Amino acid sequence: MFDKPAGHDQYLVKDEPYYELVGDEVALYEAAYSARMPMMLKGPTGCGKSRFVEYMVWKLKRPLITVACNEDMTASDLVGRFLLDKDGTKWQDGPLATSARIGAICYLDEVVEARQDTTVAIHPLTDHRRTLPLDKKGELIEAHPDFQLVISYNPGYQSMMKDLKQSTKQRFGAMDFDYPTEQTEVSIVSKESGVDADTAGKLVQIAHRARNLKGHGLDEGISTRLLVYAGQLISKGVNPEAACTMTMVTPLTDDPDMRDTLNAAVQTFFG
Amino acid sequence: MFDKPAGHDQYLVKDEPYYELVGDEVALYEAAYSARMPMMLKGPTGCGKSRFVEYMVWKLKRPLITVACNEDMTASDLVGRFLLDKDGTKWQDGPLATSARIGAICYLDEVVEARQDTTVAIHPLTDHRRTLPLDKKGELIEAHPDFQLVISYNPGYQSMMKDLKQSTKQRFGAMDFDYPTEQTEVSIVSKESGVDADTAGKLVQIAHRARNLKGHGLDEGISTRLLVYAGQLISKGVNPEAACTMTMVTPLTDDPDMRDTLNAAVQTFFG
Amino acid sequence: MFDKPAGHDQYLVKDEPYYELVGDEVALYEAAYSARMPMMLKGPTGCGKSRFVEYMVWKLKRPLITVACNEDMTASDLVGRFLLDKDGTKWQDGPLATSARIGAICYLDEVVEARQDTTVAIHPLTDHRRTLPLDKKGELIEAHPDFQLVISYNPGYQSMMKDLKQSTKQRFGAMDFDYPTEQTEVSIVSKESGVDADTAGKLVQIAHRARNLKGHGLDEGISTRLLVYAGQLISKGVNPEAACTMTMVTPLTDDPDMRDTLNAAVQTFFG
Amino acid sequence: MFDKPAGHDQYLVKDEPYYELVGDEVALYEAAYSARMPMMLKGPTGCGKSRFVEYMVWKLKRPLITVACNEDMTASDLVGRFLLDKDGTKWQDGPLATSARIGAICYLDEVVEARQDTTVAIHPLTDHRRTLPLDKKGELIEAHPDFQLVISYNPGYQSMMKDLKQSTKQRFGAMDFDYPTEQTEVSIVSKESGVDADTAGKLVQIAHRARNLKGHGLDEGISTRLLVYAGQLISKGVNPEAACTMTMVTPLTDDPDMRDTLNAAVQTFFG
Amino acid sequence: MFDKPAGHDQYLVKDEPYYELVGDEVALYEAAYSARMPMMLKGPTGCGKSRFVEYMVWKLKRPLITVACNEDMTASDLVGRFLLDKDGTKWQDGPLATSARIGAICYLDEVVEARQDTTVAIHPLTDHRRTLPLDKKGELIEAHPDFQLVISYNPGYQSMMKDLKQSTKQRFGAMDFDYPTEQTEVSIVSKESGVDADTAGKLVQIAHRARNLKGHGLDEGISTRLLVYAGQLISKGVNPEAACTMTMVTPLTDDPDMRDTLNAAVQTFFG
Amino acid sequence: MFDKPAGHDQYLVKDEPYYELVGDEVALYEAAYSARMPMMLKGPTGCGKSRFVEYMVWKLKRPLITVACNEDMTASDLVGRFLLDKDGTKWQDGPLATSARIGAICYLDEVVEARQDTTVAIHPLTDHRRTLPLDKKGELIEAHPDFQLVISYNPGYQSMMKDLKQSTKQRFGAMDFDYPTEQTEVSIVSKESGVDADTAGKLVQIAHRARNLKGHGLDEGISTRLLVYAGQLISKGVNPEAACTMTMVTPLTDDPDMRDTLNAAVQTFFG
Repeated sequence: MFDKPAGHDQYLVKDEPYYELVGDEVALYEAAYSARMPMMLKGPTGCGKSRFVEYMVWKLKRPLITVACNEDMTASDLVGRFLLDKDGTKWQDGPLATSARIGAICYLDEVVEARQDTTVAIHPLTDHRRTLPLDKKGELIEAHPDFQLVISYNPGYQSMMKDLKQSTKQRFGAMDFDYPTEQTEVSIVSKESGVDADTAGKLVQIAHRARNLKGHGLDEGISTRLLVYAGQLISKGVNPEAACTMTMVTPLTDDPDMRDTLNAAVQTFFG
Repeated sequence: MFDKPAGHDQYLVKDEPYYELVGDEVALYEAAYSARMPMMLKGPTGCGKSRFVEYMVWKLKRPLITVACNEDMTASDLVGRFLLDKDGTKWQDGPLATSARIGAICYLDEVVEARQDTTVAIHPLTDHRRTLPLDKKGELIEAHPDFQLVISYNPGYQSMMKDLKQSTKQRFGAMDFDYPTEQTEVSIVSKESGVDADTAGKLVQIAHRARNLKGHGLDEGISTRLLVYAGQLISKGVNPEAACTMTMVTPLTDDPDMRDTLNAAVQTFFG
Repeated sequence: MFDKPAGHDQYLVKDEPYYELVGDEVALYEAAYSARMPMMLKGPTGCGKSRFVEYMVWKLKRPLITVACNEDMTASDLVGRFLLDKDGTKWQDGPLATSARIGAICYLDEVVEARQDTTVAIHPLTDHRRTLPLDKKGELIEAHPDFQLVISYNPGYQSMMKDLKQSTKQRFGAMDFDYPTEQTEVSIVSKESGVDADTAGKLVQIAHRARNLKGHGLDEGISTRLLVYAGQLISKGVNPEAACTMTMVTPLTDDPDMRDTLNAAVQTFFG
Repeated sequence: MFDKPAGHDQYLVKDEPYYELVGDEVALYEAAYSARMPMMLKGPTGCGKSRFVEYMVWKLKRPLITVACNEDMTASDLVGRFLLDKDGTKWQDGPLATSARIGAICYLDEVVEARQDTTVAIHPLTDHRRTLPLDKKGELIEAHPDFQLVISYNPGYQSMMKDLKQSTKQRFGAMDFDYPTEQTEVSIVSKESGVDADTAGKLVQIAHRARNLKGHGLDEGISTRLLVYAGQLISKGVNPEAACTMTMVTPLTDDPDMRDTLNAAVQTFFG
Repeated sequence: MFDKPAGHDQYLVKDEPYYELVGDEVALYEAAYSARMPMMLKGPTGCGKSRFVEYMVWKLKRPLITVACNEDMTASDLVGRFLLDKDGTKWQDGPLATSARIGAICYLDEVVEARQDTTVAIHPLTDHRRTLPLDKKGELIEAHPDFQLVISYNPGYQSMMKDLKQSTKQRFGAMDFDYPTEQTEVSIVSKESGVDADTAGKLVQIAHRARNLKGHGLDEGISTRLLVYAGQLISKGVNPEAACTMTMVTPLTDDPDMRDTLNAAVQTFFG
Repeated sequence: MFDKPAGHDQYLVKDEPYYELVGDEVALYEAAYSARMPMMLKGPTGCGKSRFVEYMVWKLKRPLITVACNEDMTASDLVGRFLLDKDGTKWQDGPLATSARIGAICYLDEVVEARQDTTVAIHPLTDHRRTLPLDKKGELIEAHPDFQLVISYNPGYQSMMKDLKQSTKQRFGAMDFDYPTEQTEVSIVSKESGVDADTAGKLVQIAHRARNLKGHGLDEGISTRLLVYAGQLISKGVNPEAACTMTMVTPLTDDPDMRDTLNAAVQTFFG
C-alpha cells in the first residue's frame, strides 16, 4: 500500500517456509499485525517460533529483519552508529532503524538475553508514538506504516537476573507456542528428513518421553530439530540407534543416569 | 516571547494528543512551568505520564525532547560529545544541551534506570544557576528562559540499588499519577480501540481485578495500553476471550496459578 | 595582583549572589584563602554550600570553575585529554588544569561521588608542591598564585564504599554547614519566592518538622530550595496545601506513613 | 562440486594427519557432514578431538578454519569488523564469515570458554537458514553448500557458570571421544616419540593409573600428548624416570601426596 | 658522570626542600642509591615520605619524576602509548620510560592503589636486567645508570584486596617512616606556619593526643600538614580554637563522640 | 641451522649470565629444547627461574623474548594488533608472533597472572600444529623450527581463582626450581655483592630461618635477591644489622611479631 523503500526486497522471504498450522495462530497474528501491535512469542527452545515468524512474513509479503540478541548487544547495535569514513563519520542504520524505515517486521530473537536496559531503546517504537529517536544523529524516525516489532521469549530462562521489565512486557501482545502435536510432528519429521512415517513416529515417541524429563534432570525437552537430525542420519544409512544417540542423547546431557534413561527410550523403539 | 532558535519547530507536538483530564494536574503543571520548576512525574507503568507530558507541551506550545533512560547511558549521551569529522573533531549537542539551547521541555523517561551519577549532570540545570557546563568543550550553556526539565519515576521499581539520590530528588517538584478512574478509562479504551462502551467496561473491570493482584503475584498492574490492545483485537474480529488472553494474560506472567486467576477474571466477563 | 590570564573573566561571578551570613564563615574562609589552603565544605544536601562558594568568589573577585563530580568521571575529565584534530591530536585542558593555569577557585561538588582514586589526581595541587602533572602531555603546571581548590562533602552519604581516603582528607581545612537559622530561612524563602513573611514562616515550620524525621524514615531533611519552590507555587496562585504536597511531600518519599506524617505537618499550618 | 572460492586452498590440510581409527566415528561423521549437520565433539583434554577434525577435513578435502575460543572473544572476533583504512573503514571477515563464504569446516575449539551469548552468533548458521547476518555491514551471507560448523566441548569443565545454553546445544549432533584404547595408544606413543613398543606400553600403563585418579585429586587424566612428550625425552637419552617426572607428574599437580602417588606409579614401571 | 639527556633538567628540584633529619635515613638512602637498589618508603599518611624523596633528589642532584598512583592507572600510563598524529601514530614515553631513559629517580606514590598487576610492569626495571620492554613499540629500554625506582607504601591501607605481591615486595629495600619527634615537629610547624614555638608546641601536643586515637575511632593520625594549616590560620589572625577545629577536627571525622574528644583536646591547650 | 631472520640478533643474550648449576637441569632442558617441547618452570619468587632461562638461551645461542604477564594483558598484547598509520592500519606483531617468526625462545613470566583464557592463544603453538593464527590479519604463522615456548609458574599463588587450565598445563613439560643449596647461595651472594664468604654465610643462615616461617606468618621465603641487596649495603659500609633490617625485614612484613622474629634472627648473627 506504500511505495517500497530501497532495500525492501532483499529482506523478503521468497519461498514459502514449511509450516504446519497448529490452531488459530495465523489468524490471531494477522489481527495483531493489522493493528501493528508489537508481539511477543513465548515458548521453549526449538518449538518453531522463528519458523512461524518466517511463515507470517512470507504470507504478509513483508520484509523480515532478524536480530539474534545477546548480552553484549548495545543500543547502538540495534539503532545504528557513526562509522569512520574517508570524509569523516557516516551514519549507519542498525537493524531496528532499517526496519522502521522500510516497514519491515523486526524480529528480536531471544530478547531476554539482551541487557535489560538495551530493550528500553524499543519503547518509543512500541507505543502510540511509533518513533525511533536517533539521539546521536539528531534524527527522529517515524516508523513506516508497515513496521511491526516481534520478540521471542523463552519462559524457561526466566530468572530474577534476566527478565523483561514490566514496562517492556506491557508493550506487547503475546502468544504461547509449544511443541507440535504428535501427528503434526510426525509429518514434519518425515517430510524434512525423508524417513517413512513409521520411523518418524518412533522418533516422536522417544521425544515425548524425553520431554517428560524436563525439570527432572533435563533443562529443556528435545526440539523437533533434533528429531529431523536423527531422521536425516537414518536416511543416510546410519543405524537408527546410533543416529538417535548422536542427536537425541549425546548433545543433551553428560549425566550418566540421564543418558541411561534416554538410551533406554531409544532402545524401546529401535532396540 | 523569545525568538525561536533553529531546530525549535521540529520538536513541537503538532496535533493535540488525546488526554482525559483527571483532576487539577494541568493547572498545577502550568504553575510549575511558569516558575520553570523542574518536575518529577511519579506513577506506575503505563498510567499515562508520557501522554500527559505530550499534552502539556502541546498546550504550552513548547518543543519536547524525550530521552528514554537506561543504565548504559553516559553523561555524554545527555550532554553531547565530539564526533570525528573530516576536519577533525566536531561537537554535537546531546538532547539535554539541545533542550537547554532552544528552550525545549526535556523529558527524561524512566530516569531511575540511568546510572545514579549520570543524573548529576542535570544538577546545574535544576537550581538557580540554570546552566549546563560542557566541560569537554569548555562552554557553559545558559538555559533558554523557556527550558524546563521533567523526569518520570516509577516508585514500584524503587530499591536500594536504583533510587535517585536525595540531592537529585530535592531539585524537583513532584506530581503523583495513577491509572485513570473507571469512567475515564472506559472512555479511553472505547475511543482508542473502537469497541463499544459495554465491551470497554468489561475490559476495565478485568483490569481492576488484575491490578488488585499487584504485590500478590504480579509485579505491576495492567496498563491502559493493554486494554486498548484487547479492544483493538476485538474490533478486528478476534474472539474477546482470545483477545484478552493475548493481551492481558500471556504477556504478564508465566506462572500457571496467576494465569488461571487472570483467565478466570476474563471468563467472568467474556465467558 | 597578577596579570589576568586568558579566559579569566568568563569565569567571574558578575552579580553579587544572594547570601545570608550565618556566623564567621566569611572571615574564616578569607583567612583560609589567603593561605591558599584547600577547603572542604561539609553539610547536608541543599543547605547552601554551593551558594556560599559563589558568594566568596564574587567577594574575592576570583574566577570560579565548578565540576559536578560523578563516579564515571575519570582523571582525564579533570586534568585534560588529547582530542583528535585535523592535524592530529590536540591537548585540551580539563577544568582542574584550567583553574590551575588562570588562578581560579576550582569547586569539586559532591566529590565523594567521584572514584576514590580519581581524587588522587588532586594531591599534588593540595600540598606544598601546588603543581599538576599532565603525564600524558609531559607538562607540569605550576598553579597560579590565586588558585585554590574547594570540595563539598555530604557526611550523610558517607559509607564504607564511598568515603574520601585519609590521605585526601588530610589535605583540606574544613567548615561545617547546616540549614540556615529560622529567621534567616524565612528571609530567604520570602525574598526568593515572593510570599509574605507569615507564609514563609509556616513553610519553615513545616521544614523543621520534616528535618526532625531525618534518620527516622527520611534520608535527608528538606532543603531550603524546596521551601522556595513551595513559595513560588503559592505566589503563582496554587493552593498552599497543594503547593506544599507537590514540593515538600511527593518528591521526598513514597512511603505511605511518611507521607501521612508530612501531610499532617502541612495541614497543621495550612489546613 | 562447486567452484572453489578465493582463499579456499590455503586452509586445506595437505598431508594426511596421523589418526588411529577407534570405531565407526569416521562413517558417522561422514553421514553427519553429508547432511551438513552441525557437530559437537565431546571429550576430555587431549583425547584427540582436534586431531580427528583435521583427519576428517583431509579425508573430505575441505578447508579447515580453527578458532581457539576464549572468554574475551566477542561476536566481532567471529563474524568480522570494520578496520580503519586510509580511505576510511574497510570490512574484514572474521573466521566464521570466511568459513561460510568459502565452504570451509569451521572448528570452534573449547567453545564452552566463549561467552555464552557470543555463541548466539552461530545460531542462524546452525538451523535451516544457514545464513550469517553481518549486522554492522548490512549483509546477509548465505552459507556455501560445503560449509559445516563443528565445536568441541569438554564435559569436565561443565559448570553452572560455563555451559552452553540448551538453545545452542539442540543445534548440534554430538559424538563422544575418549582416550584411545591401550593398543592404539601404545601404537601412537611409539610412532610419535620413537620409543619401542615395550617402553610405550609402560608409559601407557602409568597413564592408566593416573587417569584413575581423575576426580580423586586430579582434575583431568593424563593426555596422550604427555606420553609422547615422555617418549621423546627418553628417545633423546633422558633417564625414563626423570622423563616421566618431567612430563607426567610435575606439570599436573603440586600436591605432595598426589606427586608421591604418581611417582610411585612411575617407579613401578621404570624404577 | 654521564651526558645529561634531553629533558633532564626540567625534572631537577632547584631549591633545597625543607627537611628535618630524623636519624640515619639520609646515609642509608645514599647507600641504597649508590647500589641503585629499588626502595620502598613505608609510613602513615603525611609523615613526610614525599618530602624526603624531594630532599634526596635535591641532594643527589638527580631529576625526579613523581607519579600519583590510582587504581585506574594502566600499564600504558606508566610505560607509554601510541598517540594519533597527523602522520599516523606516534609513540609517547610514559613517566617510567622517561625516567629510565634520562636517569631520573621515579617515585610511584601510594603504589598500593595501583592495580596489583600493573605493578608487574616495573619488574624488569627492578632486578639485574634494569630494562623496560616497550612491547607495543618493540623496543627494549636499558635503564640509564642513574635511574632508580622508589615507591611509597602506607601499611595502614594494607588489606587482602590491596597489597603488593611478594614477587614485587622482594624487589625493594625498605625504610620505615613515622611522624617526626616532638621537637622536630615543633620546629617544622613553627617554621612553616610562622607561629611561635609555644603555639607550635601546643598544636603538636594536640596532635599527639589525636594520634593515640588511631585504631580507636580514627583511621589515621593527624599529619604534620594539618598542624601547619592550623598555624597558618592562627598567623592570619584566626582564633586558635577555631583554627584547630577547622584543620584538626572537622576534616577528620563526622562522628560526634570523636569530635567531642578532639575538641576537648583543643580546649585543653587553647580553651 | 636456518637463515637468521631479521631482528634475530637484538634478542640474543650477549654475555654469559651468572648461573650456578644445581643438578641436571641444564641437560634436561637441552633434551626438552631439542624436542621443542614447551616448558613450564615451577618455583617460588626469586629462586632463579628467569636467570636460568637467560642462561639457557645464552648457551643455546637462541634469541629470548620475555613477557611479564599481568591480568590486563589481552590476547592482542601477545599476538599483535593493527596500529593506525598515515596510510591506514598497519599490523604489528606481538612478542609471541615475533618469537614464532624469528625462532626465539618466548618466556611468559608469571603466566598465572594472565587471564586464564588469554592463555588459550598459545595452544596452537604448543601442540603438533606449532602454528599461530593471526585471526585479525587472516594469516597463519608456522613457527620457526627453533621456536620454543617457556612459562614460569609459582605454585604458591595457585588458587581456585587463578590457575592454569588442565588443557593448558598438559601442553608443557615441567621442571621444579627451589632456592639454591646453602653452599651455592653463599657463593652467589658473595660474588654478586662483594662481601666475604663469612658475611655471606651469615646472610644465608638468616634467610634459612626466615624461609622456615613461610606459611607461619610469611607468604613467601626470602629470595636470594634480598640477600644480595643486604650484602651490597654492607659493602657500601652500612652497618650489617641496619642493612639486614632494610632488605630482609622491612620489605617483607608489617606485623610486629613477625618483625621481632626476623630481627632476632638478624641479631643472632650480626648482634
